[in-house]
Amino acid sequence: MPPPTGIPRPTVQRLSLYLRELDIAEAEGRHTISSSTIARAFGFTDAQVRRDLGCLGQTGRPGVGYQTDFLAKRIRGALSLDRTWNLAIVGTGKIGSALMRYPRFAGGGFKIVAAFDADPELAGTIIADVEVLPLERLTEVVSAGDIQLAVLAVPAEYAQGVAENLVSAGIRGILNFAPTRLKVNIPVEPIDLSRALEQLAFRVSSET
Amino acid sequence: MPPPTGIPRPTVQRLSLYLRELDIAEAEGRHTISSSTIARAFGFTDAQVRRDLGCLGQTGRPGVGYQTDFLAKRIRGALSLDRTWNLAIVGTGKIGSALMRYPRFAGGGFKIVAAFDADPELAGTIIADVEVLPLERLTEVVSAGDIQLAVLAVPAEYAQGVAENLVSAGIRGILNFAPTRLKVNIPVEPIDLSRALEQLAFRVSSET
Repeated sequence: MPPPTGIPRPTVQRLSLYLRELDIAEAEGRHTISSSTIARAFGFTDAQVRRDLGCLGQTGRPGVGYQTDFLAKRIRGALSLDRTWNLAIVGTGKIGSALMRYPRFAGGGFKIVAAFDADPELAGTIIADVEVLPLERLTEVVSAGDIQLAVLAVPAEYAQGVAENLVSAGIRGILNFAPTRLKVNIPVEPIDLSRALEQLAFRVSSET
Repeated sequence: MPPPTGIPRPTVQRLSLYLRELDIAEAEGRHTISSSTIARAFGFTDAQVRRDLGCLGQTGRPGVGYQTDFLAKRIRGALSLDRTWNLAIVGTGKIGSALMRYPRFAGGGFKIVAAFDADPELAGTIIADVEVLPLERLTEVVSAGDIQLAVLAVPAEYAQGVAENLVSAGIRGILNFAPTRLKVNIPVEPIDLSRALEQLAFRVSSET
């Protein structure tokens, strides 16, 4: 389904990359950046970067380049990152609890406000200032807590069932760490470690 | 750089997805599969799937479909997964140690054979049957142990330095969990949680 903003999906994915580069530039005290600097960082062409940034309207000046903070703000706006997204972690085993302690999750408009686990031993524990609740309380807490996104980190065999509960509870998007494909009618972004390793193995075999 | 096998990169990425679907089909006892079943699973067109699989030579029969085990074997061959890849985990903090305990890493041709951490407190501990070694032993162990790939899970500020050590030690590809872009001349596959969340937020905003 094409986004109503009219920005094509591949462009959105690249804008997300450019944002990371702008954050690095800002952190290093570089307040302007050229399209060719951005392009070089990712191995894209200059024309590609200029075309992508063109989707955001007028953002740079010829011969001067882009103001990093202004451009970052424009990208965040286009990507709907100029707001806070409340997150629930579902499954607080090894991966889930590691994510709760991951400092980058705290920044950047994403806030972990709830955590759930089916294991009664884990319920009641506190991880990174968030209490782990029993899975039965999911619907109640998600509905009451204005939680939009969920990180699903349960074993593969439970993933589909829990995902359906998340949809019923009103969750609008899922970041899926379970190594399975979810059949739900909300956006799902998979984090597929096996696939990333496979891509790496292929590249090592073919590029070297 | 185009792979010498002549399979375009986007096709390789999709083949990796198809492989997951074939594994699911096998697990469910379905021994043949049609291109349209695969296509439906990912929202691709039937023609796209047939074109991708066409890169592997003759793999299916009209009206019958593809034999799942035969097709999976062909894909694994094309992706260089028909061998064992030895892996080192570098950084055994929350993310690194979670990966070491991740059961899927054990299967599928990837084997964690070494782990390293700069923290002297962690060195000597055993995680999932692998001893964590001090970072100083990296070069020696990688060179001696026929280790091809590394999973980099160190804090962002150390990532570039450690990555350079990995290259010197003979590592040929890096799966990078550090939220930073590495400047090295070997293939790097980033696992970018922030980017995945940003894509999810964008899709939730635009599709719903």
